[in-house]
Amino acid sequence: MSGAGSDPGSRSRGRPRDPAVEAAILRAAYELFVERGADGASIERIAKRAGVGKLTVYRRWSSKDDLIAQAIEAAVETRNWPANDELAAMPVRELAERMLDQQAEAAASPEFRALVSQVFGSSVSHPSLMETYWRHYIVPRRRATATMLEQAKRDGTIPSDTDVEVLIDMMAGAVTYRVLQPDPPDATEMRRYLRALYHQSGLL
Amino acid sequence: MSGAGSDPGSRSRGRPRDPAVEAAILRAAYELFVERGADGASIERIAKRAGVGKLTVYRRWSSKDDLIAQAIEAAVETRNWPANDELAAMPVRELAERMLDQQAEAAASPEFRALVSQVFGSSVSHPSLMETYWRHYIVPRRRATATMLEQAKRDGTIPSDTDVEVLIDMMAGAVTYRVLQPDPPDATEMRRYLRALYHQSGLL
Repeated sequence: MSGAGSDPGSRSRGRPRDPAVEAAILRAAYELFVERGADGASIERIAKRAGVGKLTVYRRWSSKDDLIAQAIEAAVETRNWPANDELAAMPVRELAERMLDQQAEAAASPEFRALVSQVFGSSVSHPSLMETYWRHYIVPRRRATATMLEQAKRDGTIPSDTDVEVLIDMMAGAVTYRVLQPDPPDATEMRRYLRALYHQSGLL
Repeated sequence: MSGAGSDPGSRSRGRPRDPAVEAAILRAAYELFVERGADGASIERIAKRAGVGKLTVYRRWSSKDDLIAQAIEAAVETRNWPANDELAAMPVRELAERMLDQQAEAAASPEFRALVSQVFGSSVSHPSLMETYWRHYIVPRRRATATMLEQAKRDGTIPSDTDVEVLIDMMAGAVTYRVLQPDPPDATEMRRYLRALYHQSGLL
């Protein structure tokens, strides 16, 4: 951020930031975190991949974990997710069917596996990364899923005594657990798996 | 360490191994893996913690991943788990009740969280570690749980069309997912959580 010192050749601390430079640094930090984890994604490697000097990175972020957290935030928040009012307006079974293909593709992708692996792998050693992922990626999805499950309780699709938070953990937990197992599923197998999972949850 | 005196100046490769030295190396490798992950558990650190020279480690294991895999195997296989015939002889609800406290203590322990985090965090970058953990820790537990769930299907406790593998993923996935979330549960909360999870699964 507003670090003292400046790059060889830069002018003053007050100059406007270059959004393209920030985007390149965030993208490099995200990629390196996914590839090598929090410990392997050094500022030096991030700067090199982004094509900037280390000082350019240090001037903008006060710690590596802050940078990686923001990089995760920037990377995951661009993804698609149905809006809450869209969810509330649609019958649960139709919604589950509709989301199946998209979720199977996403969950079976090597990038998702690697991201989940690194986030879970950082959760004890770098808790701020899990917190960021949780707040920006998981919480919005949990809210949307809770909206859907509360509606499923009301319309009798699932039992009225369902513990929504536990059921969400069971569904999300099964998917993340499955993709990290030896012999990970491809998209076709993931589609079959999600259908069985939704059925087991009472949604299909 | 009990000195089978070795290392720079050791005699020959064929001499009998010292089990206490091996146990110390395996224990050090396990601890460092749990603390720092596969990349942070260097042979140098492992040797230092075990109180031996690096050559003593290199002489016994051909790669670091082999050593860590064997260390995980040695650490997790000593734990208690009901025998299969014991499981088959007991009513499912009674068994679930009986296992609840033990499982809550284990799942809420900082060591379990750290181990799960590191194993999940290694699953893409060091797949042999996940494979070892899977084969030696998970598979026996899955077999026992499958025995229990098949019996629950037969006696009508859970629906006869239950997909046992998916339900096991949902239960194990929920627990591992829950303990890695921000604000991890203590043993009391974990007991409540497991009870809700078993209820949601139809077992309680």
